[in-house]
Amino acid sequence: MTKNTNPSAHVGRFLTVEGVEGVGKTTNIDFISGWLEGQGIPYIHTREPGGTPLAEEIRELLLAPRKEQVAPTAELLMMFAARAQHVEQVIKPALADGKWVLCDRFTDATYAYQGGGRKMDFNKIAQLESMVQGEFRPDAVILLDLPVAVGLARAAKRGALDRFEQEAESFFQGVRDTYLARAKESPSRYWLVDAEKSLDNVQDQIAHILNKIVSGQVG
Amino acid sequence: MTKNTNPSAHVGRFLTVEGVEGVGKTTNIDFISGWLEGQGIPYIHTREPGGTPLAEEIRELLLAPRKEQVAPTAELLMMFAARAQHVEQVIKPALADGKWVLCDRFTDATYAYQGGGRKMDFNKIAQLESMVQGEFRPDAVILLDLPVAVGLARAAKRGALDRFEQEAESFFQGVRDTYLARAKESPSRYWLVDAEKSLDNVQDQIAHILNKIVSGQVG
Repeated sequence: MTKNTNPSAHVGRFLTVEGVEGVGKTTNIDFISGWLEGQGIPYIHTREPGGTPLAEEIRELLLAPRKEQVAPTAELLMMFAARAQHVEQVIKPALADGKWVLCDRFTDATYAYQGGGRKMDFNKIAQLESMVQGEFRPDAVILLDLPVAVGLARAAKRGALDRFEQEAESFFQGVRDTYLARAKESPSRYWLVDAEKSLDNVQDQIAHILNKIVSGQVG
Repeated sequence: MTKNTNPSAHVGRFLTVEGVEGVGKTTNIDFISGWLEGQGIPYIHTREPGGTPLAEEIRELLLAPRKEQVAPTAELLMMFAARAQHVEQVIKPALADGKWVLCDRFTDATYAYQGGGRKMDFNKIAQLESMVQGEFRPDAVILLDLPVAVGLARAAKRGALDRFEQEAESFFQGVRDTYLARAKESPSRYWLVDAEKSLDNVQDQIAHILNKIVSGQVG
């Protein structure tokens, strides 16, 4: 093990970033990556669904617009299949290696999209979460939040929509409501960011949160 | 509804065919198809994993030999994802339409391969079966049985092996043992065929079974 003045650097933390379409996840994940590098914290950057070759192939099946109606349970099981592969092959090994894991979406997104959006039974999601993850959960969830209409207007500028992005605004309202409800239920794990503010302001909020996480404070 | 002299023709039955590699599933499913046609019974012929465009894409991911080690839970969830899609989009609609469904493998194969072969917890499989199928089960399972070594010797003549066919003989022994144990537990649903006999003899056994199923007798 190499010498490192930052004691936190050898304790891998599992950090996820969540939010609805157009909330600025990509830009802000890049900011977090830069911040971690600036601190000398070893980390990997990954995403869900995906993160391994097989899980990325499942992602393609999930996102592709298709004529065939996808059974909600099939979609849910594909999400967790990709997750099972990702957790076992990528996330847990990186954490065991002392790295931080910065993940673009995780199980909160399943509660939000399949639960809040598709109105699937939350108990079914919890059952699969337990089957795939046991007690394994993110150490911190950074939730980028903004009104659905604002996010969708931003996302609409990005071109072709995937199967989820084609959903109606009410779907995304369910997604946002679920994210916010989960954040309220578990304040020690969720860090809420007001993503409607200017980019500078948003990144100040995120840096403040990252400092707290590194110093081991909870929300 | 068209007039039909066979009263069973309007009651869709869900018939699955199971067995280890090399047991003669394809040949005997063709025989069953011909038999159903001969009886004027409307039916569809389908298979698992697969049976819908999406489920067939999941099948490809499952069977492709790959360098990446596949987490057993990921494999199990992909099987049930494909099944959820197949049951909702194909099997249940066909049965509701009065057709018989002749399916090359179903959930018994998951118990046999992922449970008996991969040694995954049977309770986990049962939990997913319940989530995806509720109480929905095949009306009859035709289990083609023969010693593993005999089946593998036959299968070896077929050329390139998929990810499952590349498993060791002990894997397939676990598969066969599980099939037999399940048949023993539920004799009213399983019809055991000695597939080591001559093809004529095997098909006589199957025709005898089909007659019993059509006439509504249980095993």
